[in-house]
Amino acid sequence: MIPRIRHLTTLENLSRECIERLLDRAITMRDASAHGTRKLDLLAGRTILNLFFEPSTRTRTSFELAARRLGADVINFDIGFSSTSKGEELFDTLHTLEAMHLDAIVVRHKVSGTPDELVRHAMSGVSVINAGDGNRAHPTQGLLDVLTIRQHRPDFSRLTVVICGDVQHSRVARSDVHALTKLGAGEIRLCGPASLMPDVNEFPSCKIYNDFDKAIEGADAAIMLRLQKERMASTELPDEAAYFRQYGLDSRRLAMAAKGCLVMHPGPINRGIEIAPAVADGAQSRILEQVANGVFVRMAVLGEMLGR
Amino acid sequence: MIPRIRHLTTLENLSRECIERLLDRAITMRDASAHGTRKLDLLAGRTILNLFFEPSTRTRTSFELAARRLGADVINFDIGFSSTSKGEELFDTLHTLEAMHLDAIVVRHKVSGTPDELVRHAMSGVSVINAGDGNRAHPTQGLLDVLTIRQHRPDFSRLTVVICGDVQHSRVARSDVHALTKLGAGEIRLCGPASLMPDVNEFPSCKIYNDFDKAIEGADAAIMLRLQKERMASTELPDEAAYFRQYGLDSRRLAMAAKGCLVMHPGPINRGIEIAPAVADGAQSRILEQVANGVFVRMAVLGEMLGR
Amino acid sequence: MIPRIRHLTTLENLSRECIERLLDRAITMRDASAHGTRKLDLLAGRTILNLFFEPSTRTRTSFELAARRLGADVINFDIGFSSTSKGEELFDTLHTLEAMHLDAIVVRHKVSGTPDELVRHAMSGVSVINAGDGNRAHPTQGLLDVLTIRQHRPDFSRLTVVICGDVQHSRVARSDVHALTKLGAGEIRLCGPASLMPDVNEFPSCKIYNDFDKAIEGADAAIMLRLQKERMASTELPDEAAYFRQYGLDSRRLAMAAKGCLVMHPGPINRGIEIAPAVADGAQSRILEQVANGVFVRMAVLGEMLGR
Repeated sequence: MIPRIRHLTTLENLSRECIERLLDRAITMRDASAHGTRKLDLLAGRTILNLFFEPSTRTRTSFELAARRLGADVINFDIGFSSTSKGEELFDTLHTLEAMHLDAIVVRHKVSGTPDELVRHAMSGVSVINAGDGNRAHPTQGLLDVLTIRQHRPDFSRLTVVICGDVQHSRVARSDVHALTKLGAGEIRLCGPASLMPDVNEFPSCKIYNDFDKAIEGADAAIMLRLQKERMASTELPDEAAYFRQYGLDSRRLAMAAKGCLVMHPGPINRGIEIAPAVADGAQSRILEQVANGVFVRMAVLGEMLGR
Repeated sequence: MIPRIRHLTTLENLSRECIERLLDRAITMRDASAHGTRKLDLLAGRTILNLFFEPSTRTRTSFELAARRLGADVINFDIGFSSTSKGEELFDTLHTLEAMHLDAIVVRHKVSGTPDELVRHAMSGVSVINAGDGNRAHPTQGLLDVLTIRQHRPDFSRLTVVICGDVQHSRVARSDVHALTKLGAGEIRLCGPASLMPDVNEFPSCKIYNDFDKAIEGADAAIMLRLQKERMASTELPDEAAYFRQYGLDSRRLAMAAKGCLVMHPGPINRGIEIAPAVADGAQSRILEQVANGVFVRMAVLGEMLGR
Repeated sequence: MIPRIRHLTTLENLSRECIERLLDRAITMRDASAHGTRKLDLLAGRTILNLFFEPSTRTRTSFELAARRLGADVINFDIGFSSTSKGEELFDTLHTLEAMHLDAIVVRHKVSGTPDELVRHAMSGVSVINAGDGNRAHPTQGLLDVLTIRQHRPDFSRLTVVICGDVQHSRVARSDVHALTKLGAGEIRLCGPASLMPDVNEFPSCKIYNDFDKAIEGADAAIMLRLQKERMASTELPDEAAYFRQYGLDSRRLAMAAKGCLVMHPGPINRGIEIAPAVADGAQSRILEQVANGVFVRMAVLGEMLGR
């Protein structure tokens, strides 16, 4: 019997069994929804607070929908995004929210490690869920990505995944690698411009590529990362068109991947930069399945943490 | 049996029967409320999302109240109002929201036609409700205006309505004309400074006036439009006082209208510009009835679209 | 039988019995919560609207939690904080909200007296609750402060309280004095730099100090006020360190107070300016009890006003 998780700041410290249980729970949530159950009351009387120090309407909305579908109340604690709340000021905010008897805090912060700091300083039984911290982790994104892959390619031991783009600054890439590694993925390839690749020692189990034509070859899933446009300057690439030619996923490259290769992206997509419109909207695109799975995964996490 | 509406982007394509059914439903909602029913559960388990690209606290709040009184959950999707989201970016947002299994999207956008674009690109069963698009339409405002008139002047065939102000840029005026025309209003007069009047061919069934003294004569209802102050520059008028003298509704002009002429305004009012304070607050003012009817009309629309 | 309150703009016009009943109600709310009741349905079907013209995430969240725990719906009416809405414009907003059939409006405004203006202009049965107006009053803060003191020092006749800081600009200080006076507190001391002290005639029942070493002596409770940093310029003090040396609460000063002196602050605290970190986090600190009591007091006020 694997104990329930109480916080979720990264997937690194979760067991394979725990991750699989969360994915199975997400499928249960999806099936209930498919059978017409619009609302469960698993979290009736619970209050979830969204504490976003970086704007992210999509992720906040996904968490809000997940919480409400389980019957919880949701409070959006709108700190100004110009706020640099950190250190004691951040912990005073945490303790104030704890004193108000909240059940969970969903936090996004640009400083890596902030959710773990909140866990360390929490005084009551509040649960902390990381909705993205700096470059470090975005664990519910990692879960929804492996859930989406598992629905199409259940045997991870034979799976080759390529993650392409600005890996160095991507919390999505890190949480994907954590989840894929835990689930025993056959091969994980990381690809991007040299200046946007992480230190070679950070991902010892992954293969590093700079040539996307080689990285895509035979891949069962391609996870394309969003390019922050301000990062272009730090690459050797002159412009977005050049980036797309070298690292964009178009039909030619998709044809080099394994048959039926899953096309994935955490969104929002930059059409014509990371991905060709025809590929984003094509038959192999799983991008909207990822969005749908995001709600189910977040329902699973909240249900596991706070359900009776 | 008239089929239920699935989207509401404009009143132009609704039949008279459909409009009357929505007005009757609104009265049912009002009566339930008057008899102490604070909450219906017609939309229990449904989720409505407010997608406002222009700020409008009043209209958003009216939709939010309507949805909650029917038992629905409401999500405010706060895109920055500086966002110029359009084209593919807008449709990607739409598809993301659809993938999250929302039941309806209430949209306001400064570009005319945006709600219809959303309807055309919608992939799932989501309903789209226009809460105002550019100069084009604001259908729930049109409905609440004719509901307010019908409560006092049920026989539209004998009705003379004057709509006064910046007709050219007014989605309220357009939706009012659509609704009044469908319901067979006897005479519709449009009045305003020449530079703020629409092309003469746009409203063939309306009479056009530049002299408000003539336009108000014998009117059963006067709908005063809000003047966007930045429009003053494009008129031949030197200042707001001059606007009020020529196009404001004061007691003298109201006395020229038919006995008991209904005084209406979509709000928020500019006192002393479109309307004299004594008239806005006077016995003939229906402005707050319009606000109350707004909630009932939106309940009717949501109930019709999403109710079991 | 003391009649129910219908509005709450200041504690000045409440009787001692009424204040005690609200405190007792707050304890009932706390006990229900302590026994595992997460949600009451006292306000099911009611709608509370937050109308904040000054940003205050903490107070707004506390009211929102209180309302939701009683089963009410909550609408956040997000007027831009740059708005200077006042006079007729403010009353038009009020009347619009009343027409939408809200049950209560929680208002914060930088102009003193705004909530009373709303009460005077209200046309329907809406209740107005002051969440802070200018320098004048913050009645739920006053209630939560005396509730916190009462839990530890039930005999107010023998109580000495010191309120220290920018008393002149503090609505918290004023509401605390109102509540403490009504409940018969033995001695109320006000302390701060001369330039930040109110007119001597405003608080005839209080003792005025400029020397915090003298004011703290023998005090049973010390309420430290937040220093708005822009106020420093108007004092004779060169910087925040000098302020802390003269008016900050540190361990040395706390030792001069009565044994077990309650350390209080309305939050958010400026560590090292009003209060030493060791004191804010020490065994005598009641700051987080204040936060918890804030939710219970607001539940009590809403329940009294709107409950069946």
